Formats: sequence, C-alpha cells, structure tokens
Amino acid sequence: MWSENAVPEPRSLAIPLLDARQPEFVAQLAALRASGHEDLGRIHAQVGAILEAVRSRGDEALLEYSRSIDGLEVATAEALEVPSRRMQEALLSIAADLRTALETAASRIRAYHEHQRLDSWSCTEQDGTRMGMLIRPLERVGVYAPGGRASYPSTVLMNVLPARLAGVEEVILSCPAPGGRLSEAVLAAAAIAGVDRMFMLGGAQAVAAMAYGTQTIARVDKVVGPGNAYVAEAKRQLSGQVGVDMIAGPSEVLLICDGSVDPRWVAWDLLSQAEHDEQAQALLLSPERSYIEAVRRQMEMHLPDLPRQEVIRSSLQHRGALIQVADLEQALEIANHIAPEHLVLALAQPRPWLERVRNAGAVFLGAHSSEVLGDYCAGPNHVLPTMGTARFSSPLGIHDFLKRTTWLECSAAGADTMGRIAARLAQAEGLDAHAHAARCRIMGAGSQERS
Amino acid sequence: MWSENAVPEPRSLAIPLLDARQPEFVAQLAALRASGHEDLGRIHAQVGAILEAVRSRGDEALLEYSRSIDGLEVATAEALEVPSRRMQEALLSIAADLRTALETAASRIRAYHEHQRLDSWSCTEQDGTRMGMLIRPLERVGVYAPGGRASYPSTVLMNVLPARLAGVEEVILSCPAPGGRLSEAVLAAAAIAGVDRMFMLGGAQAVAAMAYGTQTIARVDKVVGPGNAYVAEAKRQLSGQVGVDMIAGPSEVLLICDGSVDPRWVAWDLLSQAEHDEQAQALLLSPERSYIEAVRRQMEMHLPDLPRQEVIRSSLQHRGALIQVADLEQALEIANHIAPEHLVLALAQPRPWLERVRNAGAVFLGAHSSEVLGDYCAGPNHVLPTMGTARFSSPLGIHDFLKRTTWLECSAAGADTMGRIAARLAQAEGLDAHAHAARCRIMGAGSQERS
Repeated sequence: MWSENAVPEPRSLAIPLLDARQPEFVAQLAALRASGHEDLGRIHAQVGAILEAVRSRGDEALLEYSRSIDGLEVATAEALEVPSRRMQEALLSIAADLRTALETAASRIRAYHEHQRLDSWSCTEQDGTRMGMLIRPLERVGVYAPGGRASYPSTVLMNVLPARLAGVEEVILSCPAPGGRLSEAVLAAAAIAGVDRMFMLGGAQAVAAMAYGTQTIARVDKVVGPGNAYVAEAKRQLSGQVGVDMIAGPSEVLLICDGSVDPRWVAWDLLSQAEHDEQAQALLLSPERSYIEAVRRQMEMHLPDLPRQEVIRSSLQHRGALIQVADLEQALEIANHIAPEHLVLALAQPRPWLERVRNAGAVFLGAHSSEVLGDYCAGPNHVLPTMGTARFSSPLGIHDFLKRTTWLECSAAGADTMGRIAARLAQAEGLDAHAHAARCRIMGAGSQERS
Repeated sequence: MWSENAVPEPRSLAIPLLDARQPEFVAQLAALRASGHEDLGRIHAQVGAILEAVRSRGDEALLEYSRSIDGLEVATAEALEVPSRRMQEALLSIAADLRTALETAASRIRAYHEHQRLDSWSCTEQDGTRMGMLIRPLERVGVYAPGGRASYPSTVLMNVLPARLAGVEEVILSCPAPGGRLSEAVLAAAAIAGVDRMFMLGGAQAVAAMAYGTQTIARVDKVVGPGNAYVAEAKRQLSGQVGVDMIAGPSEVLLICDGSVDPRWVAWDLLSQAEHDEQAQALLLSPERSYIEAVRRQMEMHLPDLPRQEVIRSSLQHRGALIQVADLEQALEIANHIAPEHLVLALAQPRPWLERVRNAGAVFLGAHSSEVLGDYCAGPNHVLPTMGTARFSSPLGIHDFLKRTTWLECSAAGADTMGRIAARLAQAEGLDAHAHAARCRIMGAGSQERS
C-alpha cells in the first residue's frame, strides 16, 4: 500500500536476462515471441457487423459509427471530409522547423523509393510472336492513419509517398478525429505527401467505407496503413475483396552487439522501441555480459525521466529481453530464426554480416544507424513485416501500388508451334475443348476464314 | 420423364443473351458475376479443426486424414513421400511426344519468367551514408497441385518453375493420391520442373503440413497453388503465419470480338473455358449480333461431341453470357469494370486497345492468341487473379518467391543530419525516447566513446 510517508525505492528495471547457451532458452524464446500475438477472433463478429452495416447502408452507417465509436457528431457524410484547404493551412501554420523536418523526410523517402520503380517490358520471338508484361499503378488507394491519443505524421508520409510515386491516380486518407480534432502535423504531412481526399473516419468503419465505397467515399482498390485491432481485423476480413497490405503486429527490434557501440546509444534504441506500446518487443543479443549490464544500467538511469516510462517498463518486462549468446554466430542464427521487423547490427564491422542476414524487414548497420533514423527520415519505409513474416514478406514500397498484366500476341506461325504443344498437354489433362481450341489454330486445320 | 421411346430433341444451348445497351444490364451483369462466389464460411470450422490437428499432432494427424479423406492407407508418414526416383521413372516412361510437349512448355515458361528478375541495389550519399535493398529468394516453398479426378501437369510447371528461377532452395510438391495413384504426367512435370520433395497429400491437411511442418515434412515459408474449397479455406486461415498466393476463384474469360475472327475459333475458346468446371465463366462481348449468333451456332454444333458437355452446358447456362454491346468502347469499359482473369481481344487490330486495358490478369491479342496457348505453353503464367482481384493483384511470377530487405548504414555526418530531423519529428509525435535515440547521434552530443 502506498502511504504518505513511504519513500519509493529506486525501481530497478525488470527486463529478463536470458542465456542462449542454456537448453531452456529455446522454450523461453518461443514464449517471448508468442506473448504479443493478439487474438483477433474475439472481435470477429463485431467487426463483421460493422463491415456489413457500411456495405449495405453506406453513409448512414458511417455517421452512426462516427458518433458512437469515434465520438464525432456531424450532420452529413460530406462533413466527414477534410477540405484540401485545411491541409494547406496546417502546412502554413506549423512551426517552421517541423515543416522543414517533414519536407526533408519526404524528400529522402521519395529518393529511396525511386529506386524501386518497375518497368513494363515486351519481347518478340523469331516467328513474330510478341509477349510482355504491363506494369501499371492501382487506380485508387486508401491509407489509414491512426489518430486519437497519438498521431503519426511519419505514417502518412511512409504510406502515401510510395503510392504517389507509383502513379496511383487518387489517394484517400482516413484518420479518426475524436470530437473533430485532427493533428496539425498529420494535416501538414498529408499536404506534403499529396493526399487527394481526406476523411475523419476511424476503425473498421473507415476500412469498410474505403473498401466498399459509399455515397460520399469512392471505392478504393487497396487499403494500407496500420491501426488498432479493429482496423487489422477489418483488413483481414476484407482481404480479397479489396487489396490490403500486411496485417501489422507489435513493433520489434533485435540488436546484435559486439560491445563496440556506446551502451548509452544502444540503451536509447531499446527504450525507443519499448516506448511504442506495451506489446512492442526489444531484444538485445551480445556475447559480452559486462556490456549487457552496461546497457541495462543506462536504461535504468534514463527511464525515470521519460513521460512514457510505465509503457516502457511493461514492454521491457513482459516482451523484452537481454540475451547473452555464445558468440555473434549464434546471435545471427537467432535473428534469422526470429525474422525481426528491425535488425540492428551494432557491430564495429557490420558489413560482412549483412549478406548473411536471411530474414529481417530492415537492417541497420553500425553505431550511427539508429532505428529511429529509419522510422522517420533515412529513406527506407517504416512499414515492415512483423511477427516473423519477414520470412516471406517485404517492406511496403512502390511495388505494393503496382499491378502486373501479362500479354500475348501470337503470329500464325507461333500459334501453329504452340498449338501442337498445347493440344498434346490438353489431351494429357483430359480437356478436349482445350485441345480443339489449340488445334484449330494449327496451320491447315481450317483457315481463319474471315480475316 | 425419360422413357424408352423418347427421342431426345437436339438440345439447344441455354446460354443467356444479354444486351449491354439496356438499363437492366447492370443488374444482370452483377448477378452473373456474384453467382460463382463460393461461401467458404460453411467449412470454416471443419478446416480449422484439421489445421489444429496437424499443428498439434503432426504426422499422426496426417496419417489419419490421408486414410479418411484422401483414401490412402500407409503405415508411416515416410511412406507419404514420393521418391525422386519415381519422378525420374515417370519422365522416362511417358509418351515421347508428351515429354517433348512438357519440356518445350517448361522452356518457354522459363524464358518468359526470366524477364521478371529483380536485382538488389544500393547507393551512397555524399556524406558517406549508404543504403539499399536486398532481394533474395524464400528459403522453402510448398506447391499444392490438385489430383484425384483430374491431374494437371501444367499447374506443376506454372507453380514450380518461377520458384526455381527465383532461387528458392527447396521446393516441396504436395498432391493428393487416392489409393496411392499418381498421374505419370504430373510426376514427369515434377521431374522437369525440379521438385525437391513430393508428398502424396491432399486438402487442408496438406496445406497445414507444409505451413506448420511435421516430423516428416519441413515447414515452408510460402504455400502456392490452386485447390478445392478446403485448400482455399486452409490458405485463408493460415495466411500471415505462412505466405500464401492468391485465393483462386473460378476461372474466367472475357472475349471482345469485332467479328474479324473465325467464329469457330471463338466458339472453341468459350467451350474450353466452360469445360473447367460448372463455376467457370465465359463471356463474349460484341457489337455484331449476327456474329454472336454465328459463335453460338458453332458452340451448339461442337458440344455434342465433347465428353465434358454436361459441365460445359451448366457453366454456360448459369455463369456464361453472350453480350451485345453498343460498340467496342463499351466492351472495353465492361472489361475494365469486371477485371477478368483472361481478356481476349479478338480484334483485327488489337494493339491500340491493349494500352487501354486497365484491369485484367492476362491479355490475349488477335485471332491466333487463344487462351489455351497461355494456359499451357506460351510463357506467361496461368496462375492469375480471379473474381475482379486483377484490380489490385497480379499473375504469379518470380516476384512471389522473392523477399526484400531494406538496409541503412549511416555515416557520422549522416546521423548528425538525420538525427536532427528525426528528433524533431519524434517530438511532434510525442515519442521522447525516439528523440533521445536520434539526438545522441548528433555530433557533439556525447561522442561514441567506445569506438
């Protein structure tokens, strides 16, 4: 019990210290990894009902949910739209250094993503047959940006800019605005990134409105952007009816340290990861026990000054770990097994290790490459695969806003050659009409009478 | 009632004739499109139980399901594996012309997909900061190929070859084998495509085994390939735990005809599409009423000779349509709205129209480019987005077996510049630890003591 006279003990940091050389480590690591998985099943029905209401009743349902969930009362769905003028005004009204920071970040993100461009191609065969692939932008994309308690202008830049660079014709931004309040920084980021239309809409209803379209909001081809469990579940349920990006789990960082980087720097990197939310995961792997202790002391020292220290303590205690490894080889093996969202190689000579990283969303090399530089402005995207999905999926990029179409234009000679092959394979598959469709293009099989 | 003395009337083909110039067409088209959607909800729980059994009991559950569902009784899970020797034997035993057809198809598919290669890249900024993107193959991939009533060697080629070209280390093929029977053509295709391991496993249990791994089957990073409703629902439920390709719906073709292509050829194209299954969709759009009638007469003439005529009749009656349009402009507009899996531009001058196609999986230009040539051997993949998903997704290709990792290596000067920007943005987002992690890298903020 807390009493007036009690003087609180200096609170030590309750972050687990594990030893990868011990046999129990495998189970410990598995438990640590599993702990953050949110069970979306419990909100399955609730989200399903919201989607169905928006699908069938459109704007009317949006207005109801905006009132009951977002705490935003407006008379018409048109009033949910944020005028472009409002975004431009925010850009003019925010602090000059914030505007410069946003514009510089946008410029660096654009420069990095420009490298991801893909081009259509075609080729011609000797018999005149032509084929190729068209690579073209999606027509309309919806970006969801979280709002309310916190706001993230960086998320607006990271999601909108690649869509814009891909050539998407219309980018719609949806952001919850409790009581009609929107972050000026988010509005300014929307102006800088080039959002076409913006709506004050949150949660599953925002995702549903963009995916299905309503009287006021045009249907999009793909919905991207992070959000709470309702947004994630809505994206999961709508996947296939509309394109969706990955379903984001809690943010993760794994640092491999050889002891060469200032422990204070590394301590800040761990603290900043844990600061996101209580489910965020920060792991440090090092063969140096004394270094691990030095990092821990630095964290303990700085924690009391941080406004979000309770979130950080909870994250580090329940989902974080300081892990002593046999050597850097073992650290890399663990990293490849986990496939972390962010992998920091806090090593004196990080380059040779990069090629050996098999599974990670984004890699940060050396003392100066703090994850936070990547979060905001270095250039690579901060929307990254979490929960081990870096084994098979990739950071958000231009490619997520492009689609491919193959095409084929056979010459008469090409159809003759290919018709014989196709007819033989169709026969093997027992598809007679396929065989006929191929054979009638073989030369002499009955000419193209009308051409 | 059918009686001994009844002489069947020549059956006319009951394919709907629609008119896109009439106001009711919009609703008619929507109904036609919606009719093929299978409700996977009804098997949700059943598939969930299979996945959980395989996850928790591994090989033991596989043996049980193989017996009860696939009709395959084996004593040990090892016996579910098809020896490599068996694939090589099939290659030697199949008809020479079938082997040539498979090998030629494989060679053409490889040549087309080679164009899809993506390369890692990096760049260096003036202050010495480096960054880039690593593009690397998935480590292990599982391909599901349907079997049982029918077998599709072409599906093996189309799914395995892009994985192989991408550089995937191990490709596992899973195929149901009722009573232990496997198609020699499928085995030969597996040998040609270069499958590493093959298992006689079908349905949701096959997908679960590859996604989770069992004592006998190694866990894969991604599962691709078409299958029945159980396979589709298993992929849907496992998505995010393992990578999956698209969830395939019924196959679709939409032909736009100006009347220049032999109606017999077009009739075979429609019949071959309808031959797949009763849910397959074949649509013809033309401004020429007399041409539409000519195509219909050709279909009626050839139908009675086809072994699968009942499937074709059902598909054409319930999901097919001959659609008269005002002009080719309207036809293209409808095609872009539908976003068909296959779009055939059966036009005298198809090239100018290609650039105006916005949504389609694969486009076939002119009289000689039958869809069946693409199905088997032209080169482009036959795994294509269905059910309108070509609006936002793409044909299967090398890219589906590659993953991207971004990387960043900041110089001290780069961290100084970026640290200021990141700190300012972190401050705007209320993330103090982020701001500290950025600021400690600003020059003079406390040097890297240990380096």
